[in-house]
Amino acid sequence: MSIIDLIVKKRDRGKFSTTEIGELIDYVCNPEIPDYQISALLMALYLNGLDDDETSDLTRAMATSGDTLNFPNTPGAIIDKHSTGGVGDKTSLVLVPLLAAAGLKVAKLSGRGLGHTGGTLDKLGVFDGFQVDLNKTAIEALVNENGMVISGQTDRIVPADKRLYSLRDLTGTVESMPLIASSIMSKKIASGARYILLDVKVGSGAMFSDPEKAKTLALKMVGIGKTLGVPTKAVLTDMNVPLGKMVGNALEVREAIDTLHGGGDQRFRELCIRLASKALALTSGSNNDQQFDNHIVGLINSGKAFDKFRLLISSQGGDLTAVDHPEMLPLADFQKTLYSDTKGYISGIEAKKIGIGSMVSGAGRSRKEDKINLGAGVELHVSLGDSVNKGSPLATVYASDSQRLAKAIEVILPAFTYALEKPDPSRLILAEY
Amino acid sequence: MSIIDLIVKKRDRGKFSTTEIGELIDYVCNPEIPDYQISALLMALYLNGLDDDETSDLTRAMATSGDTLNFPNTPGAIIDKHSTGGVGDKTSLVLVPLLAAAGLKVAKLSGRGLGHTGGTLDKLGVFDGFQVDLNKTAIEALVNENGMVISGQTDRIVPADKRLYSLRDLTGTVESMPLIASSIMSKKIASGARYILLDVKVGSGAMFSDPEKAKTLALKMVGIGKTLGVPTKAVLTDMNVPLGKMVGNALEVREAIDTLHGGGDQRFRELCIRLASKALALTSGSNNDQQFDNHIVGLINSGKAFDKFRLLISSQGGDLTAVDHPEMLPLADFQKTLYSDTKGYISGIEAKKIGIGSMVSGAGRSRKEDKINLGAGVELHVSLGDSVNKGSPLATVYASDSQRLAKAIEVILPAFTYALEKPDPSRLILAEY
Repeated sequence: MSIIDLIVKKRDRGKFSTTEIGELIDYVCNPEIPDYQISALLMALYLNGLDDDETSDLTRAMATSGDTLNFPNTPGAIIDKHSTGGVGDKTSLVLVPLLAAAGLKVAKLSGRGLGHTGGTLDKLGVFDGFQVDLNKTAIEALVNENGMVISGQTDRIVPADKRLYSLRDLTGTVESMPLIASSIMSKKIASGARYILLDVKVGSGAMFSDPEKAKTLALKMVGIGKTLGVPTKAVLTDMNVPLGKMVGNALEVREAIDTLHGGGDQRFRELCIRLASKALALTSGSNNDQQFDNHIVGLINSGKAFDKFRLLISSQGGDLTAVDHPEMLPLADFQKTLYSDTKGYISGIEAKKIGIGSMVSGAGRSRKEDKINLGAGVELHVSLGDSVNKGSPLATVYASDSQRLAKAIEVILPAFTYALEKPDPSRLILAEY
Repeated sequence: MSIIDLIVKKRDRGKFSTTEIGELIDYVCNPEIPDYQISALLMALYLNGLDDDETSDLTRAMATSGDTLNFPNTPGAIIDKHSTGGVGDKTSLVLVPLLAAAGLKVAKLSGRGLGHTGGTLDKLGVFDGFQVDLNKTAIEALVNENGMVISGQTDRIVPADKRLYSLRDLTGTVESMPLIASSIMSKKIASGARYILLDVKVGSGAMFSDPEKAKTLALKMVGIGKTLGVPTKAVLTDMNVPLGKMVGNALEVREAIDTLHGGGDQRFRELCIRLASKALALTSGSNNDQQFDNHIVGLINSGKAFDKFRLLISSQGGDLTAVDHPEMLPLADFQKTLYSDTKGYISGIEAKKIGIGSMVSGAGRSRKEDKINLGAGVELHVSLGDSVNKGSPLATVYASDSQRLAKAIEVILPAFTYALEKPDPSRLILAEY
């Protein structure tokens, strides 16, 4: 079928066969097919949708559109964990060594941050010498030796997604459930995951603020995993408030290290334990939650998880000095602490505002080509439900220069809302599928 | 509003304001805006539509997106007639001189043929020296002096339509009512028409075979004309069978000349008289149909219409030899007459098959860059309802070479269908608006 015939078929609400989905992805990977035809097709897909069969077919075709990892010499549970992105989400930094300590194998391909959400590769950039541009051989070797790796994704893995995503971003076709689901799942499958654990964020700082939409996405991805024979679980978690107290690259690494030492923010620690426990349930096929939780807490308290984190950093060429002395991690020079001008309880810390404030401070990028400052960001001094007085410290902002500091403060201050009564505790984990 | 915001607004079924439609057309005319954004917008427009306000705004913005004609020194009724395209449709060749003979002024900007329908400029190419690439000054002068001109449309008239149309053609977004209506009407308005007469074809050889769709398009264009202050009438006419007996460039010119002499095919003659009469009604604001019909027949029978045709050809540099001796017009060398193998009545002559057959014979283009043979085409020997015997001649095919002849015959023969009983006469004019 020609590309125009495919466009017309979806324009007229037709259902693509497996063969037609394969042709579609062949066209996407063919540089002779012009962008304007792909983008017309994307808008037709956005508006007329793809059913579950088509979405699974699309995921499979995308996953095999370029290089794939498959770890022929690595038996056992290779798991990948994916978060749909949030503010202060440094979960991978804790979870990768924690799962490796639990005997699972984690081959994590990550990205850099854009907009108000950060990226794992940027955070790992605080460790001098840490290599993220690893080839297939290196990735496979690290998974075999240490049970873990965190690497950047090469252009040759799921090239179809690369082209589709860059067009979607510029044509108003990003927020399509089947396109989002197939984009995420195809990359996990192409990177050799035998099990997939998904953290789907819900709230002002997430892709979806509507829990129903987040649920739809989660179920769609779990369904794709089932159809394609890759057992997949999803957890819906709150992203109305930032995850943990630290937002920014070096700041988040500090918090991750604290957590690996058994400390850190209570809510963040809870999420890490929950996700790790869920991973054990997924790979073992058993649902003994309490036992898994205890096992995971034991791996943290015994120092085994932190040891794995040291190994992760050193095995990819990173300098361990800052791992052992996180107080040496950079902090941006222009700093200001914000104080409450109200007495009451903290009823909201709007994640998106904190995320944008952190980006403005210098920690993130509004465009791909922006440079980031590893020491910039926001340190929160309060959590949801805390009581504050006039003059209580709310947050400290670390910025690259005085202009950025002023701008970031302007964005961050309105993120805090207050109530006279202590608000009900907000739930972190909203649902599991 | 950014182009992405416009895309998202229409994607989400928003209604564009007049200002936003203006911005949209500015983007379409801006070469820095990539095709892939325009095509995503086109698919959103196709699927979510434009209401009447938006369609009129779009037409106005497109009409003024480039050069316009306005005939400041030409008082009176400047009328343009437009056909949505059909097989054997040589109406402009008769109507332009006929309307000029009736005292109206006609500035007709025409195109070349593509696919199974022909183009007026191609047909006029049979007259040696006939100039169709006229500039604004020449067009205005000819309308002032002779009351008529037929010229090609320059790239600078409605450049927005040029870009939109070429993208629509390649992205499955051609058949959109508001986009078709605004494309046609914007070109008429930009070319200075003060009145517009539309011939909307319905049937197998037309843009729409569904009369309801053709009616929708007709009413949409009449509505745009009203909103923009350009009185517009539309006639819905049958295009299940070819118009007249001749299909192909020189063949159609012969039939047009016959008709201007008072002869020709009855059905084609009826359409010319009906359209001309309607034009008089439109420009005079009166509805005295019988009187207008008689006046038009008088202009043909007196030779005044033919004289105007001679003037049209000579004033644009064309050689009059073939006008006065149409038997000298070219006929392609490879000829074959097809005969009926059935006794009965002709119940159908499928316009699209005859149109494609004519194209295959060498008279038309399947791609823009194809060369045409002016003498190729199809001459029908029967009309709908004629009785035939075994061996009665049906049509003669004129082709560029023996291969084309064989291929054309293969397409044309199945166009003829037969019935045992004489079929009811089919109506030519289905509705008037």
